Amino acid sequence: MEQTIIPDIIVGRLPVYLNMLQHLSAENVQVASSKELGDLMGISAAQIRKDLSQFGEFGKQGRGYSVVYLISELQNILNLNQVWELAIVGAGSLGRAIANYPGFKHNCFKVSMLFDSDPKIIGSRIGEFVVKNPETMDFEIRNSGIKIAMLTLPASVAQETAEKLVNSGIIAILNYAPISLKLPNGIHVQYLNPVQNLQHMTYYLK
Amino acid sequence: MEQTIIPDIIVGRLPVYLNMLQHLSAENVQVASSKELGDLMGISAAQIRKDLSQFGEFGKQGRGYSVVYLISELQNILNLNQVWELAIVGAGSLGRAIANYPGFKHNCFKVSMLFDSDPKIIGSRIGEFVVKNPETMDFEIRNSGIKIAMLTLPASVAQETAEKLVNSGIIAILNYAPISLKLPNGIHVQYLNPVQNLQHMTYYLK
Repeated sequence: MEQTIIPDIIVGRLPVYLNMLQHLSAENVQVASSKELGDLMGISAAQIRKDLSQFGEFGKQGRGYSVVYLISELQNILNLNQVWELAIVGAGSLGRAIANYPGFKHNCFKVSMLFDSDPKIIGSRIGEFVVKNPETMDFEIRNSGIKIAMLTLPASVAQETAEKLVNSGIIAILNYAPISLKLPNGIHVQYLNPVQNLQHMTYYLK
Repeated sequence: MEQTIIPDIIVGRLPVYLNMLQHLSAENVQVASSKELGDLMGISAAQIRKDLSQFGEFGKQGRGYSVVYLISELQNILNLNQVWELAIVGAGSLGRAIANYPGFKHNCFKVSMLFDSDPKIIGSRIGEFVVKNPETMDFEIRNSGIKIAMLTLPASVAQETAEKLVNSGIIAILNYAPISLKLPNGIHVQYLNPVQNLQHMTYYLK
């Protein structure tokens, strides 16, 4: 069967929809129309219907979407029917904050290991983690089968660390370091850089 | 003079271009073609040329862009010729990490105040900040003229806090709480939610 490639920008909106639906579900909302969802998220109803139609048919015209059903379908599409373990590389203040971020647990993610190259903290305990030596990264990551890493280290060492991670079997990186990573095709990278989000908004502030 | 409204998605790419150009400039690269930039960022040269052409003409066909000139033009467009002060609301581990994030200083942003509602830490010192009582928020923010706030607090209190911030004169919010905010038109909100970035990537991991 032929499979259409869905634009990545549409894929990127599914987690936003999922988050909103989970929020509605927590408030016991059972049915939501694309108009209601759009109003809540500040996007058009047509956009939501068009996005979702790329993945299947999830509701009957005029009936609205079943919140619980759409959550479960989106979780299927996004491969969230398993727990994804995460490795964090960089145990500075940001890495530590993220290691203890409570939002992962309820969303199929679990931080499993924390690396840092500072000899002063290797082996020490941070929350529930013992900081691991990056020299053991290849063994530890390969052995555990972890596929996703978060980079919370300075820009100056982000590229070389990302390459090591890829060589250890990592195929998805959430990068907090303020630098674009150059990695082989097939490796997925997402960036979290507060400066860029702020600069996006200052465009409008004058 | 008629001013065309430029799609927000294009505005959002300018900080990415700026970041890459600053990186090249730090490596003493003086001229970069749209193809070189595109290769570095994983987008097409045509996309870069089209995006930039919305804002003016920044290079001559076939000559490439002057890196320093394009940086300065993008900074103009994004209103980065001044220092933007920031208020952080929520002094938990994430708020603390962000308060001390070194990337702001070099990018026209400066954290100026840190609020938290926990009586145990109000008045205590965190890095260079003394944690302020949110009850003084309206006075403090109005008095300082701060326009941008970062929300690093639990989802359960994010909406009401965002409304208070808007009432205090805040017009741009960078929201780390995993919840969509409903705010009046004219208020700019950007979201940083690692779970959504991770879910975006798990779509491809099967």
